[in-house]
Amino acid sequence: MSTFETRLADTQAQMETVLDKVLPLPEGPQAQIMHAVRYASLGGGKRLRPFLLLEAASMFGAEGEGALLAAAALECVHVYSLIHDDLPCMDDDDVRRGKPTVHKAYDEAMGVLAGDALLTLAFEIMAHEDVHQDAGIRVKLISGLAKASGSYGMIGGQVIDIYAPILLQNQNQDEEFITRLQALKTGALIRYAAMAGGLLSEASAEDLQNLDDFASALGLVFQITDDILDREGDAAEMGKATRKDDGLGKATFVSIYGLDGAKKHASDIGQQAKQALASYGSKADTLCACVDFVLNRKK
Amino acid sequence: MSTFETRLADTQAQMETVLDKVLPLPEGPQAQIMHAVRYASLGGGKRLRPFLLLEAASMFGAEGEGALLAAAALECVHVYSLIHDDLPCMDDDDVRRGKPTVHKAYDEAMGVLAGDALLTLAFEIMAHEDVHQDAGIRVKLISGLAKASGSYGMIGGQVIDIYAPILLQNQNQDEEFITRLQALKTGALIRYAAMAGGLLSEASAEDLQNLDDFASALGLVFQITDDILDREGDAAEMGKATRKDDGLGKATFVSIYGLDGAKKHASDIGQQAKQALASYGSKADTLCACVDFVLNRKK
Repeated sequence: MSTFETRLADTQAQMETVLDKVLPLPEGPQAQIMHAVRYASLGGGKRLRPFLLLEAASMFGAEGEGALLAAAALECVHVYSLIHDDLPCMDDDDVRRGKPTVHKAYDEAMGVLAGDALLTLAFEIMAHEDVHQDAGIRVKLISGLAKASGSYGMIGGQVIDIYAPILLQNQNQDEEFITRLQALKTGALIRYAAMAGGLLSEASAEDLQNLDDFASALGLVFQITDDILDREGDAAEMGKATRKDDGLGKATFVSIYGLDGAKKHASDIGQQAKQALASYGSKADTLCACVDFVLNRKK
Repeated sequence: MSTFETRLADTQAQMETVLDKVLPLPEGPQAQIMHAVRYASLGGGKRLRPFLLLEAASMFGAEGEGALLAAAALECVHVYSLIHDDLPCMDDDDVRRGKPTVHKAYDEAMGVLAGDALLTLAFEIMAHEDVHQDAGIRVKLISGLAKASGSYGMIGGQVIDIYAPILLQNQNQDEEFITRLQALKTGALIRYAAMAGGLLSEASAEDLQNLDDFASALGLVFQITDDILDREGDAAEMGKATRKDDGLGKATFVSIYGLDGAKKHASDIGQQAKQALASYGSKADTLCACVDFVLNRKK
């Protein structure tokens, strides 16, 4: 394996351990919610957001338990968003990470509640003194996480994604529109991942800006490749339904650029991402390798 | 109006102002979510939890903008819980605070997302430096809010409430069981309200314990009177459906004690609540009057 692949595999193993530690153990008459939360969070996932957080933190000197806890909090928000997005009233998906979605394995009420519990838990974890000894930094991490996940971030993106066909029926869903949609829906949390790593390591304002430029571009690459995989990907390998966007008549980067055009666009933006970290030399190798990983991913 | 009624009315007016200020204004293609969030949060509600927070804070010397912001954050969590509890997959209620529930006025997806947005916003507000200049106190407020709302608090209570008939079909839903359920579902956030007021005013450990004893008893009174109102109350006056528990065959304080017994029980626990604050003399008058308000409420 490459250095990158080794580090990603390490992160995946570490996240499994730390999530197992911070997720509540089934207990009391409400034990079912702990089971559902663990079912959704453990045993799968690329852990891309935690990886970005940990690598950005490490690049500027922060490692260890605190960064792992912050990464776990971030992953809780990501998993909550998947659970709620999969609900029948949203994207109505039956399979996620290769197994039945929470509302299929349990029921719809548990889907709503397990998502709620993970979102709530994320902030409880991030507030813990083991994340960083300076409460001022923890508060910045919490504030940033809330903003990235809220109405002007991830939730805003999900709203646009769901209601765009209705709200904007007379407007063209052009490149600018879907770029903006994805900057909120996927991009905000990916940017936060890099930013949180920088905050944990008390990186300078300039470093934070470079991390943000990198992650903004990476988020866009992630979404373009998501659209490519939705068209080309194998549902079994992806662990979720593919070609959903086709059926819904949604505008995607593929419908706008065509398949080859979208691949070229992803590659160009990927170069921009690497460029944002060029001044750090080999210190940024892992984050730059992550760009290639996202460009070449099969799921 | 009594002093208590005047202060409650003042709180309601203040909460309307501060919520209007902190809730996002409709903006961008996702404007619908801001409309839904405002629809659910503004123009109604007893604001009992904000009132408790503000009065507890005031009792130990904290007043002004910070306490109001913390109270708004707390109310956001309360409103989110109402929106999600009202969803078809949960309690399936059509009316709340005298108007259609969010999933009725908008749709189910917006019900899920508006709740998510309010829960997220609560932590963003609580992290703001205007809440308290000391980041260490803000982090305590955030941690406490997450715990009170999470799997060992409010969400845990909702899970028990929904699944109890299935999970515990062979067990008696006795007084101990429903007391525990309500201590989580309603009690945890009411206790947090008083505790947050104490934290904001940097009250001593002993004062915090007294506030907690008071609020634990008040929360129980609130739930017993809720059960009484569900049996006796007028749906139009309540602004929501009544006699729902009867139809669901749920154990309530009324089904266990009978109507008169439940009223006697509520009154006894109300006395315990007041007793917890007896040492503060007239400083605690408003919080003690709040016990009578909850005992005598008609909605």
